Amino acid sequence: MKMRLILLFLVFFSPISFAKIPPRLFPSSFDDQLSSKGKLSCETNYFTQILDHFNYNNPQTFQQRYLLNDKYWGGSKNNAPIFVYTGNEGNIEWFTQNTGFMFEIARHFNALLVFIEHRFYGKSIPYGGDKTIAYSNKTTLGYLSSTQALADYATLIIDLKNNLTAIDSPVVVFGGSYGGMLAAWFRLKYPHVTIGALASSAPILNFGNITSPYSFNNIITQDFKGESENCYKVIKGSWKQIEDMAKTKDGLEKLRKSFRICKNYISQGALENWLYTAFVYTAMTDYPTPSNFLNPLPAYPVKQMCKAIDDPKSGKDTFEKIYGAANVYYNYTGNATCFDLNDHSDPHGLAGWTWQACTEMVMPTDGNNKESIFPPSKWDYNERAQFCKSNFGVEPRPNWVTTEFGGYNIERVLKRFGSNIIFFNGLRDPWSGAGVLKDISKSIVAIVAKEGAHHVDLRWSSKEDPKWLKQVREREVNIISNWFSQYYQSLNEIY
Amino acid sequence: MKMRLILLFLVFFSPISFAKIPPRLFPSSFDDQLSSKGKLSCETNYFTQILDHFNYNNPQTFQQRYLLNDKYWGGSKNNAPIFVYTGNEGNIEWFTQNTGFMFEIARHFNALLVFIEHRFYGKSIPYGGDKTIAYSNKTTLGYLSSTQALADYATLIIDLKNNLTAIDSPVVVFGGSYGGMLAAWFRLKYPHVTIGALASSAPILNFGNITSPYSFNNIITQDFKGESENCYKVIKGSWKQIEDMAKTKDGLEKLRKSFRICKNYISQGALENWLYTAFVYTAMTDYPTPSNFLNPLPAYPVKQMCKAIDDPKSGKDTFEKIYGAANVYYNYTGNATCFDLNDHSDPHGLAGWTWQACTEMVMPTDGNNKESIFPPSKWDYNERAQFCKSNFGVEPRPNWVTTEFGGYNIERVLKRFGSNIIFFNGLRDPWSGAGVLKDISKSIVAIVAKEGAHHVDLRWSSKEDPKWLKQVREREVNIISNWFSQYYQSLNEIY
Repeated sequence: MKMRLILLFLVFFSPISFAKIPPRLFPSSFDDQLSSKGKLSCETNYFTQILDHFNYNNPQTFQQRYLLNDKYWGGSKNNAPIFVYTGNEGNIEWFTQNTGFMFEIARHFNALLVFIEHRFYGKSIPYGGDKTIAYSNKTTLGYLSSTQALADYATLIIDLKNNLTAIDSPVVVFGGSYGGMLAAWFRLKYPHVTIGALASSAPILNFGNITSPYSFNNIITQDFKGESENCYKVIKGSWKQIEDMAKTKDGLEKLRKSFRICKNYISQGALENWLYTAFVYTAMTDYPTPSNFLNPLPAYPVKQMCKAIDDPKSGKDTFEKIYGAANVYYNYTGNATCFDLNDHSDPHGLAGWTWQACTEMVMPTDGNNKESIFPPSKWDYNERAQFCKSNFGVEPRPNWVTTEFGGYNIERVLKRFGSNIIFFNGLRDPWSGAGVLKDISKSIVAIVAKEGAHHVDLRWSSKEDPKWLKQVREREVNIISNWFSQYYQSLNEIY
Repeated sequence: MKMRLILLFLVFFSPISFAKIPPRLFPSSFDDQLSSKGKLSCETNYFTQILDHFNYNNPQTFQQRYLLNDKYWGGSKNNAPIFVYTGNEGNIEWFTQNTGFMFEIARHFNALLVFIEHRFYGKSIPYGGDKTIAYSNKTTLGYLSSTQALADYATLIIDLKNNLTAIDSPVVVFGGSYGGMLAAWFRLKYPHVTIGALASSAPILNFGNITSPYSFNNIITQDFKGESENCYKVIKGSWKQIEDMAKTKDGLEKLRKSFRICKNYISQGALENWLYTAFVYTAMTDYPTPSNFLNPLPAYPVKQMCKAIDDPKSGKDTFEKIYGAANVYYNYTGNATCFDLNDHSDPHGLAGWTWQACTEMVMPTDGNNKESIFPPSKWDYNERAQFCKSNFGVEPRPNWVTTEFGGYNIERVLKRFGSNIIFFNGLRDPWSGAGVLKDISKSIVAIVAKEGAHHVDLRWSSKEDPKWLKQVREREVNIISNWFSQYYQSLNEIY
């Protein structure tokens, strides 16, 4: 298998492959979807943001989008709280819609809801909103970085509080995945702007050599192996069979037919990536209830994939079994007639991650040991560097994130520094191996759910949610309540 | 009096005025001076530093100078500590030589000493070390900022520790004045690089409207008033007399003669600035023992100035009295024959501060109320903005420092966040009004010396040091010892 950059949400190495399923673009249907569920809609706002916070020679600005919902807000006179989502690498509507937890607890806390879009994503595109210019080269893309994004959030929040005359309203930041990393880092770097952070499934330790590069795929392996030994063995054995088949005469055409790939394009690498994507994201979103985050999925989709593989009806044909599994991820709705390996659409606007992965977000996840469900491979930094050089003309800075944000010996460093961070991780999530899994101090705590997947705690709740998930959310609410108690008490203290 | 930018060390508005006293350049005489006192010398090193840490489109680097002394170091095998001085706005030799405290306690702690020069100062000039280019315009100067400087320090320290295989050696940062601000901010932003900071006379609250713009000159007023009411009155009254005299025929020439100004240049504003400089820096360096930081000065120079003013021998001539006071600051050695108001020399290489004051370091210090020893005036941001616009073509960002580093409600923010910072302030120091003067938490503490001046604690000790100063240093050593105890204990803890 070829090297690929793994997005926090999306396998992102050429070729990218999406199934031909009904479009899941949110911008048009966002409010409808929220209100159709009897839930909340947001007001869209734009803030004139500084393009370069760290250099004064550049007076350029851009329009940064943020969504606002004040239905439950207790108002500035009561110093009622503000919940801010620190947007990740995509359209903010997408993350807003998938962070029902904030809406659901806003009523309890009388909180204002703010979802800030990350620069260079969604509608928050510098250079007059022109994505073609903004993404054209390393000079324009140079302003796309986590450090600038955090400074954006600080600047916007302070300005918003001033405008609302809500100076003393406490701010709590929330984020999942890369957004969770940003939330945790935001609390660490801007404690004067936020009193606490809920960092859900934030792999802040997936840098340098803190976390093994085998960890990510090991967890995926365990997810499938845990369902059934046979399921694991079939998937593990399939790669060699695909490789062998691809080498034979008409082998690619046979593979195309086996996997219902559309006629326009087939290659061994593309097929492998397409399958890899399905396994990775199914493991990541192995939620206990049906979901529609990346694709529409049933509850416990890993189990469903293994069911398809273990199904006696699928006979002994490995490709048929693997196709059945892929079908769970790519075609749960049953509408697809064929799968387009040549579909480079990007419905959530995630393209900027390639740049981020080529500069600071060098997260080694690509290793596969002997037991891996994927073919053995080593994490190879040079491969990444080469890709980035030829794609953008940049050399990654693999040590920058640990220099700027730390990570090594995090327990020792934060044991007596900082406070008020919740690190949630679900152990079925491949990213969880690079999360904070143990309490660091009394107020920098880890909540670990053995059965949980990627930021499952932030999803809209459901009656079908298992008990452990309800308990996780309850604990999060309690901790956040304590932050507020402490904060409001401190407002009355005289210094 | 005209608006002026106040450097942490130097009045820095045109015209700058220095006395014709023997040169005090350190680069040539630095090692000699240290060794002549039987003290320590340093090894000069250069580190290839990234010019822009926050943008990846720019692969440029520059040579950053740092001084190293390992005479007392206990070595990496013992995880012996590293003391780092976070350099301020000038040649690093100058700060090194004036931070004897680090040398003196290094033996006790078996510490390695590292003094890092701030980018754009001394020999740490980007653009191939060419100051003419580096300082030529806002594009090149754009990289001169505190945020970049802090990232420099993090990058250099991590690299140095790697090279010394001293990964587990704890780092404590020290700094005075702007260097003290950097030290405090460094601990807050980079807790993974340093275990604690001694921030001496760091006016981190002199931003936005946290500290009154009258505070600075109020303290100077008090310093002189505290010595003698007459002294205060004479100085306070002198400005009007100078103004009146300047308006008369031959008035400027009379003033020139009264103040022994050289023939080449005289103007009312330049004379006023020259006197203002003397009062400000004498108040700042009102040390209990003779010093040679800015100019050679006697012990308690404010007292000496007032003595000159109150001296019955100086008769009733205000100018003669004020001249006597200025002479304490400008001519303690007695070598000056006349004072050159047209001398724009910059022996410590502080010129970059004008840029910093025009971008982020907007520190309101210029207000004078009715009681001020200086003529009444209001802090006027627009005046600053205009100056910066015409000088550099930039608009200051007066809210940036509080956005990036905080400051408002610092007690509330840091009471449960962060640890291990000592804020030292001497209350005779005009900057002390913008310092942290009360303990914030158990380990973010304020040490306040009523009789102290600008970072007096960091100076070389002397047998003549008063008891309170010895006690301040003792307390600092004890606190730092505790940081180490905690740190070494945590090395043995298993997570």
